[in-house]
Amino acid sequence: MSSSIEKLKEIFRKFPTVGHRTAMRFVYYLAKQPKEDINELVTAILQLQKNVKICQMCFNPFEGQELICPICQNPARNKNILCVVEKEADLQSIENAKRYNGLYFVLGGTLLMMRKEDISKLRIEELKNRINKSSFSEIILALNPTPEGIATSVLTERNIRETGFSGKITHLARGIPTGGELEYTDDETLQSAFEGRK
Amino acid sequence: MSSSIEKLKEIFRKFPTVGHRTAMRFVYYLAKQPKEDINELVTAILQLQKNVKICQMCFNPFEGQELICPICQNPARNKNILCVVEKEADLQSIENAKRYNGLYFVLGGTLLMMRKEDISKLRIEELKNRINKSSFSEIILALNPTPEGIATSVLTERNIRETGFSGKITHLARGIPTGGELEYTDDETLQSAFEGRK
Amino acid sequence: MSSSIEKLKEIFRKFPTVGHRTAMRFVYYLAKQPKEDINELVTAILQLQKNVKICQMCFNPFEGQELICPICQNPARNKNILCVVEKEADLQSIENAKRYNGLYFVLGGTLLMMRKEDISKLRIEELKNRINKSSFSEIILALNPTPEGIATSVLTERNIRETGFSGKITHLARGIPTGGELEYTDDETLQSAFEGRK
Amino acid sequence: MSSSIEKLKEIFRKFPTVGHRTAMRFVYYLAKQPKEDINELVTAILQLQKNVKICQMCFNPFEGQELICPICQNPARNKNILCVVEKEADLQSIENAKRYNGLYFVLGGTLLMMRKEDISKLRIEELKNRINKSSFSEIILALNPTPEGIATSVLTERNIRETGFSGKITHLARGIPTGGELEYTDDETLQSAFEGRK
Repeated sequence: MSSSIEKLKEIFRKFPTVGHRTAMRFVYYLAKQPKEDINELVTAILQLQKNVKICQMCFNPFEGQELICPICQNPARNKNILCVVEKEADLQSIENAKRYNGLYFVLGGTLLMMRKEDISKLRIEELKNRINKSSFSEIILALNPTPEGIATSVLTERNIRETGFSGKITHLARGIPTGGELEYTDDETLQSAFEGRK
Repeated sequence: MSSSIEKLKEIFRKFPTVGHRTAMRFVYYLAKQPKEDINELVTAILQLQKNVKICQMCFNPFEGQELICPICQNPARNKNILCVVEKEADLQSIENAKRYNGLYFVLGGTLLMMRKEDISKLRIEELKNRINKSSFSEIILALNPTPEGIATSVLTERNIRETGFSGKITHLARGIPTGGELEYTDDETLQSAFEGRK
Repeated sequence: MSSSIEKLKEIFRKFPTVGHRTAMRFVYYLAKQPKEDINELVTAILQLQKNVKICQMCFNPFEGQELICPICQNPARNKNILCVVEKEADLQSIENAKRYNGLYFVLGGTLLMMRKEDISKLRIEELKNRINKSSFSEIILALNPTPEGIATSVLTERNIRETGFSGKITHLARGIPTGGELEYTDDETLQSAFEGRK
Repeated sequence: MSSSIEKLKEIFRKFPTVGHRTAMRFVYYLAKQPKEDINELVTAILQLQKNVKICQMCFNPFEGQELICPICQNPARNKNILCVVEKEADLQSIENAKRYNGLYFVLGGTLLMMRKEDISKLRIEELKNRINKSSFSEIILALNPTPEGIATSVLTERNIRETGFSGKITHLARGIPTGGELEYTDDETLQSAFEGRK
């Protein structure tokens, strides 16, 4: 295997969800593209690097001259509610659902074990600073109801309370999702579904 | 293929979830069982047929001399709430979750199309009779949030109202189930999860 | 849960591929069947038990008054070739493919470890007896190319040779199955596919 | 959604196997990478484009100054056999299996329908030229035994014969792959497995 092929394959393997075989497919695909398409890809990557920043308030990537992303700047958004999410894709899903109108904070990960080295990867301190400088009436911990998300939620809630935050801390409703079936639903979800019935 | 084998295989194929290949496996399995195990199976089937009745109130199967099942008879259950489910297995899941303490009604199916011949398979008339003879304060339509379940829920609600029932008609909470991930959650479920947050 | 329901469920759970939930479904299904259908099922099970024997030559179940199954008796089958299979369903698949015209022997299982207690469950001695009493020119070891099947094949071949059998011992061709793709094919299968090309 | 993000996402969506959601994940991933990693990726893509050519004999990508790839140049390879494959990844799988030592030809696709516009996308004319200029004793049509691969194989074989090629045209052996089970194997594969037994 030649070195340019091998080199690019190794870089693609670090992309999320990409394994050995898919990385090789990407390389074969690019090897067959005309020069102009390759230039377009390279330009797009460099433009992303040049134009896209991480918002200093919510830590979501955005494009623009300002330090703050369009959501954080938007005067129509409700500045009293903060929704804490694990990752950028979760924020995007919530935006797509067009139901939430407050602000966001991207925590940058989840953790299963409460080990110091893992906790330090999350933006816990940045979140505490954000809360100290704001006056939220509600913080929604929109973490996934997975073991990792629940552990992270517990940790985050404790840290929020340490800031002296006295507003509401809420969690997304648990229940039966679209297409779900009672027969295959776990006890905890069924209990929540009964408690939250309306 | 000999006729005893073929005959039994055809009967097993009508069992829920059983296809051609599994039915054949069941026959091979039985062909190898000792006589006493076969007799035990036959006895168990005949005992089921003799001892198990369909409850005349909730239409769930039960074993006993009475006409009414232990849940419907239980003085500790809340007689003011009725939970309408699609099938027996859903009732069992709800009982296992140990959160609901009211009564049940097994509708006996779902339907996607509002065709007369399909609707007649559901126990809609039996449900209306049951409601007319009772004084429920709440009826929970615990049908699956699948297209079939939603269609059936709409139909059932309309029929309940036709009886003159003036209590609450509720539905199980929609939301993110245990282990669910926001990134892969549909908009409708996310909207419900935000609306029902607490 | 009542005892007739529980009893029958436990028996169904021993059926191949049937878990807790499916066993319960079978019970609910039977609880709803009319009396005549239950009687038909019971009769079919008892008929199977009465009419179906295990062939004393190939150990496949069959229906009839004789001790030997129709395949073993069939004068049109080639009596010089014996095909050793793991289980009844494999024999059936081979018959369905309508390409093989010799005789069979159902070994009754496979094993991964060469432990005495596991080996004793296979019909190795019965196979040796069968070979000693016959004059096969070829024995096909049609065991699955899974780790268990390969281990069993090695063991069976050694035992066949111990009988003094001097004919051919063959194995089914390895290669790419219908619908298979080279990209996802393991090295060993690809090697066989190249070696056996024609 | 900002335009640099959207632009790059659209380019990633054209990558093989990449959908809407994965493309977005790639963009988020790149947006968080440090400048040096972005430069490394861009350099690797440009190096691939500069250094990797399509071999003029077999149409596989390779890196080097010559017009012909290392496999086609290798004096140790058997120049009398040509293996025709659908795509680069198939060639790579065959090389990994280390059993075949002849030359290759990458056809560049498969087709299900014999429509002129689809056929023109395959390198049928290039293959005929290659055969006319060589003196192969065997051509292996190593196309997948999928409906598309079989149709393409039929078309390719007809075109090869039109060149006046009088050597052997062979196909990879069909059979049971590693890990395959007779019970779930189709009739055609089982027939091939019996015919090719050894």
